[in-house]
Amino acid sequence: MTRRQITGFSNPTVKALRALREKKHRKAAGKFLAEGLRLLTDARESGHLPEVLVMAEGRDPHPLLAALEADVLSAGGEVIETSAEILGKITGKDNPQAVCGVFAEFDTSLAALDRSRAKIWLVAQALRDPGNLGTMLRTGDAVGAGGLILLDDCADPFSAEAVRASMGAVFTQAIALARWDEFLPWLRSGDRQLVAASLRDAVPYRGAPYAAPCFIMVGNESRGLPEEYEAACDLRVTMPMKGRADSLNAAVAGAVLAYEVLDALGG
Amino acid sequence: MTRRQITGFSNPTVKALRALREKKHRKAAGKFLAEGLRLLTDARESGHLPEVLVMAEGRDPHPLLAALEADVLSAGGEVIETSAEILGKITGKDNPQAVCGVFAEFDTSLAALDRSRAKIWLVAQALRDPGNLGTMLRTGDAVGAGGLILLDDCADPFSAEAVRASMGAVFTQAIALARWDEFLPWLRSGDRQLVAASLRDAVPYRGAPYAAPCFIMVGNESRGLPEEYEAACDLRVTMPMKGRADSLNAAVAGAVLAYEVLDALGG
Repeated sequence: MTRRQITGFSNPTVKALRALREKKHRKAAGKFLAEGLRLLTDARESGHLPEVLVMAEGRDPHPLLAALEADVLSAGGEVIETSAEILGKITGKDNPQAVCGVFAEFDTSLAALDRSRAKIWLVAQALRDPGNLGTMLRTGDAVGAGGLILLDDCADPFSAEAVRASMGAVFTQAIALARWDEFLPWLRSGDRQLVAASLRDAVPYRGAPYAAPCFIMVGNESRGLPEEYEAACDLRVTMPMKGRADSLNAAVAGAVLAYEVLDALGG
Repeated sequence: MTRRQITGFSNPTVKALRALREKKHRKAAGKFLAEGLRLLTDARESGHLPEVLVMAEGRDPHPLLAALEADVLSAGGEVIETSAEILGKITGKDNPQAVCGVFAEFDTSLAALDRSRAKIWLVAQALRDPGNLGTMLRTGDAVGAGGLILLDDCADPFSAEAVRASMGAVFTQAIALARWDEFLPWLRSGDRQLVAASLRDAVPYRGAPYAAPCFIMVGNESRGLPEEYEAACDLRVTMPMKGRADSLNAAVAGAVLAYEVLDALGG
């Protein structure tokens, strides 16, 4: 167990932590940042402790923070105390929370998913907005989904914005990254129903014949799903669109479908 | 009808347009910016023409853009041609779309709302994220809502981010801004059912006794709704929360409820 104090902005540890705000450095290090006591407590209660815990000097004492600190130290992690200014430099915020943690990225291979573990799985294709991505993780947690499968070129689920928008669900939902041509054979190698909202050859989403494990797929924010992906679905559903628009926000569409499926499958 | 060319970055019109990216200047001018041919075409088809249309030189010709230009000119508006660089300076984007428009802000008084016009109305309290706000407008359009009522200190619905996230619904949904102590007497002066998701004294959201006009209220992203606001609801509903979290993203919660209400009211 180690504990140390950092006082200099140019300290190499500060630089390394700060670099985790950029995707290429996250991937190189295999680590990501999560900020705030609530998020870190969610992580701890989900069985994830940070490798490094960074705390601001002069913070208010809090029993959950003390518990977190003790757990990190007894697990062999490192605790760093530093100024609020340096913590702000690490997280890139003018008003940083009093604590942040560095976590090892999780296994994001399809092979690590156990589809029998949940009735609902969310799938996103080329989702570019990290806020949408985090929101889908949060929705997945709420409906008891097993996890989120990210197809093709999605935003990074370990970015600060996605982690924040997930409200801790990044620690409870499995996350897999895959290309379509890896995903489809994996999907079809076991029980599944692949479902998407579609305008063609579709049935109303209310009362549709959903079946577990149900994989609910949403497409890119601008372009929606490629035709080929829609065609590969086991079930295509339509949602009422009463106005001018022909689509919903991707995270919203996924959530409305997920709550419908949850009810249909006896949620 | 006027048409002119602007070549200088320091042109006062460029400065005035650029200033519309800031809320205080939008409020002072009573105007806002919308960017991109798709959004401007949605606006036009909803009966809203920009007072000023700014187009990049060297843009690709497009019949919808030509139609827009003709309509703006014949309505007495102004058309400005400028470089892509200056357009980027106005919109604050490195890769601006080829066109943007300046619109007069709409009447946002409660008095302007006609509640008999729609079965569903969305209400947001202290919603801080312009993306969430725009997403709620978009959802409102999709479920055939009448509009969005913004209580207390919300993000500005006329910010570039909210306008963009609304996908044109800022032009189809009525928008009202009100304090709670103005809203409640207005609400109770006519038919209404005020509904919110709540953990206390609530019935399951599926099959709840929804009634039109149904006002679906969501709270602030961090704090949710104040107790007093929940207590004032005519109907409190619970949504399943199967995971660690006890809440959904505000725009997601509003959408799941809105689709449920749409179905219940014979959508």
